[in-house]
Amino acid sequence: MAVTLHIRQGRADRARQVADVLRHQIHAGGYDDGLPGEPELAAEFFVSRNTIRAALKALKDEGLIDRGPKVGTHVAQRKYDHGLDALLGLKETFKSYGEVHNEVRAAMTVAAPPSVAQRLRLEPGEQVVFVERLRYLAGLPLSLDLTYLAPDIGAEILAHPLESNDVFALIEQVSGHRLGSASLALEAIPADPHSAAALQVPDGAALWMLERLTSLDDGRPVDLEYIRMRGDRITMRGSMIRSAP
Amino acid sequence: MAVTLHIRQGRADRARQVADVLRHQIHAGGYDDGLPGEPELAAEFFVSRNTIRAALKALKDEGLIDRGPKVGTHVAQRKYDHGLDALLGLKETFKSYGEVHNEVRAAMTVAAPPSVAQRLRLEPGEQVVFVERLRYLAGLPLSLDLTYLAPDIGAEILAHPLESNDVFALIEQVSGHRLGSASLALEAIPADPHSAAALQVPDGAALWMLERLTSLDDGRPVDLEYIRMRGDRITMRGSMIRSAP
Repeated sequence: MAVTLHIRQGRADRARQVADVLRHQIHAGGYDDGLPGEPELAAEFFVSRNTIRAALKALKDEGLIDRGPKVGTHVAQRKYDHGLDALLGLKETFKSYGEVHNEVRAAMTVAAPPSVAQRLRLEPGEQVVFVERLRYLAGLPLSLDLTYLAPDIGAEILAHPLESNDVFALIEQVSGHRLGSASLALEAIPADPHSAAALQVPDGAALWMLERLTSLDDGRPVDLEYIRMRGDRITMRGSMIRSAP
Repeated sequence: MAVTLHIRQGRADRARQVADVLRHQIHAGGYDDGLPGEPELAAEFFVSRNTIRAALKALKDEGLIDRGPKVGTHVAQRKYDHGLDALLGLKETFKSYGEVHNEVRAAMTVAAPPSVAQRLRLEPGEQVVFVERLRYLAGLPLSLDLTYLAPDIGAEILAHPLESNDVFALIEQVSGHRLGSASLALEAIPADPHSAAALQVPDGAALWMLERLTSLDDGRPVDLEYIRMRGDRITMRGSMIRSAP
């Protein structure tokens, strides 16, 4: 027996429903030639034109679309897919999308804070290699990466050009090992002013914050990264499996 | 041969490094009794007290810690871990953390917009069941979930209490099938004013936006969800494996 409740669905609620479905149609490339007009969208979603306008305003405020009285509604911001399953460097991930270029902001040996040392299985205060890079995809900032490397591998990596290489590829090259796996913690955080300026986003813009500890195929952790990515340029994609109850 | 570069590391850069490491120590529960004083942190990170102050200010601006001249520095916001691998309902995920309660804002039959119909393998305009819930964990809003259900399963689910049950559990109960897998797209977005009010966060606060399509163990997609979660309450955790080059 179906009981139908209908509680508090105002225009803003309906606009959110429309915006959510449109957002993912946009990411899927369904509107690369522009979005349909308001009457067509209203018919498609069985809502009023005012609801469609409110939905499009929300997507415009997110920076996802541009709207103009003469030009219609167009996708403003191409979003790139980043996998949550495969362990890949940025250059490997986006090789079909455009050139990845790294601005190296620091590359040096530092004393490891205790918790960094512990994650890399070193003694507190032991030297590690620290690399900070601002990474560009297709000419726009994509991420700000802070990387702590095990000292032996890090020292060799510093002798290689960091502007044009993924650290992952360099680790495999200098260690003679393949990477094994990584554990990651992902957060959605507001951009602090200094990071916002580097990434060319407004203060407080939504960022990804990815902490990733990567080990070689022999299980040794060698690479601890703190990566801020622009929320407006990246969609994370993955799959989940139902486990035993 | 190690070449050491040292480029443009100002106080704000060092403060970010400290803040990133502290953030994850806080999430790991390392400071549940309060953070060490500024001199101790300065010694631990090999930086000045001014750098420590800038790092703590950034974490305070994120809402992660509280600071006071008499009381010291304390963790303000408990963050909860959400797995990126296992397909679990919110109540299953957080059963060890506290009570999940759902405020049902809508539960009704609607005509499916074309892209929703397509994802659920229905005809455009066919009836689906739409459920909107504001979900609370331990008395505070955690997520706003918009759910589209296949009509047969959705109709049966509407006859069950949605305030206290995960939709996942109800799907398995009414369908006689286990869930199989889900594909997901995750984004970091700013909160629109209406969603911000519902989730009790400031306008523009960083939110998770999770689109998840879940199928039964026979492969039939039955549940399409658009879930906004508070960025300040959830950390996503998972692991990645290096694939063949």
